[in-house]
Amino acid sequence: MVMSKTFEKLQPYLDKAMALQTARNLFEWDGQTLAPIEAADYTSKVVGILADEFMKCLINDDVVKLVKKLNEEKEQEELTSKEKAIVKQLNKTIEELESIPPQEYREFNELTALSNRAWAKAKKENDYGHFAPYLKKVIEYKKKFAKYRAKKGEAPYEVLLKDFEECFGIKDLDIFFDKIKKEIIPLLKQVAKKADTVDKSYNYLTYDIDKQKEFCRYLGGYIGFDFNKGVMAESPHPFTLNLHNHDVRITNKFIENNLESAIFSVIHETGHALYEMNIDDSLTLTPVGTGASMGMHESQSRFYENIIGRSEAFWAPIYQKLVDTYPENLKNISLRQFIRGINKAEPSLIRTEADELSYPLHIIIRYEIEKMIFNDEADIDKLPEIWNKKYEEYLGLTPTCYSDGILQDTHWSYGEFGYFPSYAIGSAVAAQLYAKIKEVMPFEKYLREGNLTPIREFLRDNIHKYGATKNTNQILMDVTGEEFNADYYVNYLKEKYETLYEL
Amino acid sequence: MVMSKTFEKLQPYLDKAMALQTARNLFEWDGQTLAPIEAADYTSKVVGILADEFMKCLINDDVVKLVKKLNEEKEQEELTSKEKAIVKQLNKTIEELESIPPQEYREFNELTALSNRAWAKAKKENDYGHFAPYLKKVIEYKKKFAKYRAKKGEAPYEVLLKDFEECFGIKDLDIFFDKIKKEIIPLLKQVAKKADTVDKSYNYLTYDIDKQKEFCRYLGGYIGFDFNKGVMAESPHPFTLNLHNHDVRITNKFIENNLESAIFSVIHETGHALYEMNIDDSLTLTPVGTGASMGMHESQSRFYENIIGRSEAFWAPIYQKLVDTYPENLKNISLRQFIRGINKAEPSLIRTEADELSYPLHIIIRYEIEKMIFNDEADIDKLPEIWNKKYEEYLGLTPTCYSDGILQDTHWSYGEFGYFPSYAIGSAVAAQLYAKIKEVMPFEKYLREGNLTPIREFLRDNIHKYGATKNTNQILMDVTGEEFNADYYVNYLKEKYETLYEL
Repeated sequence: MVMSKTFEKLQPYLDKAMALQTARNLFEWDGQTLAPIEAADYTSKVVGILADEFMKCLINDDVVKLVKKLNEEKEQEELTSKEKAIVKQLNKTIEELESIPPQEYREFNELTALSNRAWAKAKKENDYGHFAPYLKKVIEYKKKFAKYRAKKGEAPYEVLLKDFEECFGIKDLDIFFDKIKKEIIPLLKQVAKKADTVDKSYNYLTYDIDKQKEFCRYLGGYIGFDFNKGVMAESPHPFTLNLHNHDVRITNKFIENNLESAIFSVIHETGHALYEMNIDDSLTLTPVGTGASMGMHESQSRFYENIIGRSEAFWAPIYQKLVDTYPENLKNISLRQFIRGINKAEPSLIRTEADELSYPLHIIIRYEIEKMIFNDEADIDKLPEIWNKKYEEYLGLTPTCYSDGILQDTHWSYGEFGYFPSYAIGSAVAAQLYAKIKEVMPFEKYLREGNLTPIREFLRDNIHKYGATKNTNQILMDVTGEEFNADYYVNYLKEKYETLYEL
Repeated sequence: MVMSKTFEKLQPYLDKAMALQTARNLFEWDGQTLAPIEAADYTSKVVGILADEFMKCLINDDVVKLVKKLNEEKEQEELTSKEKAIVKQLNKTIEELESIPPQEYREFNELTALSNRAWAKAKKENDYGHFAPYLKKVIEYKKKFAKYRAKKGEAPYEVLLKDFEECFGIKDLDIFFDKIKKEIIPLLKQVAKKADTVDKSYNYLTYDIDKQKEFCRYLGGYIGFDFNKGVMAESPHPFTLNLHNHDVRITNKFIENNLESAIFSVIHETGHALYEMNIDDSLTLTPVGTGASMGMHESQSRFYENIIGRSEAFWAPIYQKLVDTYPENLKNISLRQFIRGINKAEPSLIRTEADELSYPLHIIIRYEIEKMIFNDEADIDKLPEIWNKKYEEYLGLTPTCYSDGILQDTHWSYGEFGYFPSYAIGSAVAAQLYAKIKEVMPFEKYLREGNLTPIREFLRDNIHKYGATKNTNQILMDVTGEEFNADYYVNYLKEKYETLYEL
């Protein structure tokens, strides 16, 4: 194959952009995990300059011309599939950055920094009124930006959704979420009635933090976290960040009076980490050397956290090790009781603490409110009331304060509208993949044998290694033979909870 | 004052260069303290691109033209002293980078990466023959580069020395080191005879590492380390690195069977850190927003480590806390015995483990060998013999293997010739400053009261805050009323050791 001359000319720009982006990622990691408190005001100047340089490196006459040329049919023929994917992604980046005036983009970035601080203060002080003016401005900018970028007839919210998951628009999500509401709300009600029969008080005893750390390191390694290519650290909110596929980092948070918190965080983040670690080396440090989308990423973390990590087969070979780590707390807790404990489901107010069953309802509430906002159907000052009404309707609970309601998530303060659905898409994609994996291998047997390698290799060879060269539906089609289908998710949840709770 | 229009035009280049440099520093920090082992090969590509961009940002027609213009008398009149210092430093950077062909510079950087690995292997396997061919090539490049850069009649080694300490050339160092040899070699012999009377076996008992960490954190804070502007971490070799004056990081290494190691490392590195933390905010993220030179930096770390940290007055208020941390090991060790222990002096083979008194002799040996190398008076294959002969002559000891001799330091593998003298200059500058400080404040009384603030503020207001806007001799002149004078150092060592050892 002849190397495309045009693509060759693009390479130095790609390399430079990737170096600048990797540097920004490292600052992000460092800021969240280590940097001293007073550093931020000064370091943000450095990061701002790197961001500007990143933008200049991709949005300039040379690059725009090259990318336009590479979109021509004749040029496309000379490209490898990796190069095509890179050009496709560059089209998107350029489209986004070109359509927003740099001055407004900068103003928006400054605003979100302030807005995030205002949110943190408002949440701490349970004062929605303090946050609302910032939120209004953030929404104004997002609406304006979405309109700049919208194709003819495209709704602004559609534009935002596709930033995170190109395969899912409003129509797809409406269908998906309607199904969930119809099936899951009644199921949750049934399950919740039985929640009292699950005694989970053991989970809130005192669990030595050093021992938690040691067990979580063991657990990450057990699942497949490669410590030669990755790092585990601590931060107030667990997250995964990769510099490239040989440097993937996850964090955790340890709570002395909560055994599950750190355990399921490390399983979840390791799911993200395996995705990044298993991307093919031919994609390293290219724009497609990372996960396909937010939704696909969440599918991997949730596959590990919920489908594997909350199953009895997974814990069967290792539960004794956990009991031995905390004999005084767990010696009388059977594996069966532990499994019922980690799958206890009942409506609650906080998304990040929600169980697997009620989780998607939290997402639907946010999705519906975001849609209202971008359809100009919501008065921002009235958001708390809209929020509370929906919680009452879908979960049967009403927040008693803003901090446990409208102010609980950080996303909107950064202008991240359209992000929440990825979480639910991830859960549903995981269930669809699970249905296939069970067909092609003795999944449960492997878990009971403590042999996670075949599962990890299946995900690597069918999903991870492709990085972002395919989108969610292409991956699902290649792996499962059909595009996204939410039935697998609904069926998975029904079967799991009906069995667990003997409904 | 009118802001210089020419300088204003330079500002965006300075900002970008500083952002790129800060990013490189963060990668350096991360690589030394945290990054997973397999990351290096990939991350080095990113760092290489950032380094190239840094070079391109400063070495281009626009910047060179602006800097040349700023050197004109009329332009100089419009500059503040800070701006003048920046222009002076840019002159140096441009001179260095412009005079070396980029191709050779890149080859050299690739070579030193290999050379450093070869050194590490050679040291591990005690095989000088493995390192020698790399060292020869590194020296060839350094000679070539120094010749490109040398002014008429200037010796190549002179060029290298001035990279680290512009105030000290061969002539200055010859005088300085001759004085040391004349005075310190006989003193060390006298002291060494009495070394056996100091029982230091307590130092090599078992010291719990978590407790060491806690005590070192306490000690750093006691001296003035500001945890809101700084971070402490671990690495195989302790070092200090600053992103800027609000983000200064030090590392430490903890050894279970050595109490002193981590204690004096944290005091030493905190000395470096205070320098960076106390630089004036008006210099933050500019080329002069860092310490004046290697020598000045070492003067601060050694002032804290040796002059303060090894004094009885410093330990008097806090020694009991150390005893309480390790009662089983220290309850029978009096403060007096501890002070004699931490000041035990006798000839040894390893520079980094040398005591305060014999330390400069290690430096002199390296200085003399470097001078021979760059005067073409040394056969590189014969360096071990030259090395061993000098150790025998000055310290009365002969290394029995390469690893404890010629291969002990990493510097030459990176091409860092001319660096070692800074360590000795630092010790001597510290002594000169000490003589002055004792005049202007009740130094010992403050230490005994556990009140280090007046000392720290003196250093801040007279040295630290100026960053690199003054050089070593300007600082010494302004603080002590005279330029560098090694007599203070010799007198300090004589007085200290004659008292300690009752000579």
